[in-house]
Amino acid sequence: MTESTFPIAAVADQVPPRARKSLYPQAILDLHGARLEGREKRPLGDLFGLQNFGVNLTKLEPGAISALRHAHAKQDEFIYILQGCPTLYTDTGSTPLSPGMCAGFKAGSGDAHRLVNETERDVLCLEIGDRTLGDQVIYPDEDLQASFVDNIFRFTHKDGTPY
Amino acid sequence: MTESTFPIAAVADQVPPRARKSLYPQAILDLHGARLEGREKRPLGDLFGLQNFGVNLTKLEPGAISALRHAHAKQDEFIYILQGCPTLYTDTGSTPLSPGMCAGFKAGSGDAHRLVNETERDVLCLEIGDRTLGDQVIYPDEDLQASFVDNIFRFTHKDGTPY
Repeated sequence: MTESTFPIAAVADQVPPRARKSLYPQAILDLHGARLEGREKRPLGDLFGLQNFGVNLTKLEPGAISALRHAHAKQDEFIYILQGCPTLYTDTGSTPLSPGMCAGFKAGSGDAHRLVNETERDVLCLEIGDRTLGDQVIYPDEDLQASFVDNIFRFTHKDGTPY
Repeated sequence: MTESTFPIAAVADQVPPRARKSLYPQAILDLHGARLEGREKRPLGDLFGLQNFGVNLTKLEPGAISALRHAHAKQDEFIYILQGCPTLYTDTGSTPLSPGMCAGFKAGSGDAHRLVNETERDVLCLEIGDRTLGDQVIYPDEDLQASFVDNIFRFTHKDGTPY
């Protein structure tokens, strides 16, 4: 893709969703797949050729989760709620969110987070995360960890053995 | 500020705005200050201690501009329109935007951009930019350039002499 093929602007909810629903290992999907099926991510930053950070327009249907609860070692994350009322889970418990609210997840804090749509209405949010190399991801609730290698997250068991 | 002082979440439009309206040199403010006065930035990412990228909730009153038209050498930028209908100016001309639209400005493209509120209603948008070191900023319409040094943009004339 050359620069000239990037659009000047776009209607976010008309950007094609990511084809692959999840990058998690199959054993993890076997456990949580149903709650990840209701998650749809439209990669807005990639559309414009951005490489330093990603921006997703993410839809969570009722019952869906944004991710397994996780914390990044080197990459910051940020969310902004556009529609609906998800619940944010962190180490300290649950926080109800609503449109116009935002949250940031500082790299290296160790505090793991995820959003859960516990309502009957779709949730729409923007998710931003940078792509700092050498990132590690911890998942306190699962036998799972990830390393950011060659611009892709590679998953292993907590003891380092592959899935 | 220690990590424990960061909030879990926040209502974006209640985050205090940046005290200093603009970082531009006084000579530039003398030329464009009136159109920058109507710009208000709430630093959402900083509130959570994020360091790899910034997220601003930016309000543009009628007549206000988001910035002088500029292009970054190393830092990506992204905007998402929450409210109102700004006009995006790039090297190729003007593009009308509306709520739910987004645009990305890829580092190194050389294509300079800014938003202008040419309507009678306030514009609200999210602005995201990373903080890659060694960034240079070009301003094709002004005798101005900037370098990102020690996490701050330092401005000079195009021949490198200070303001």
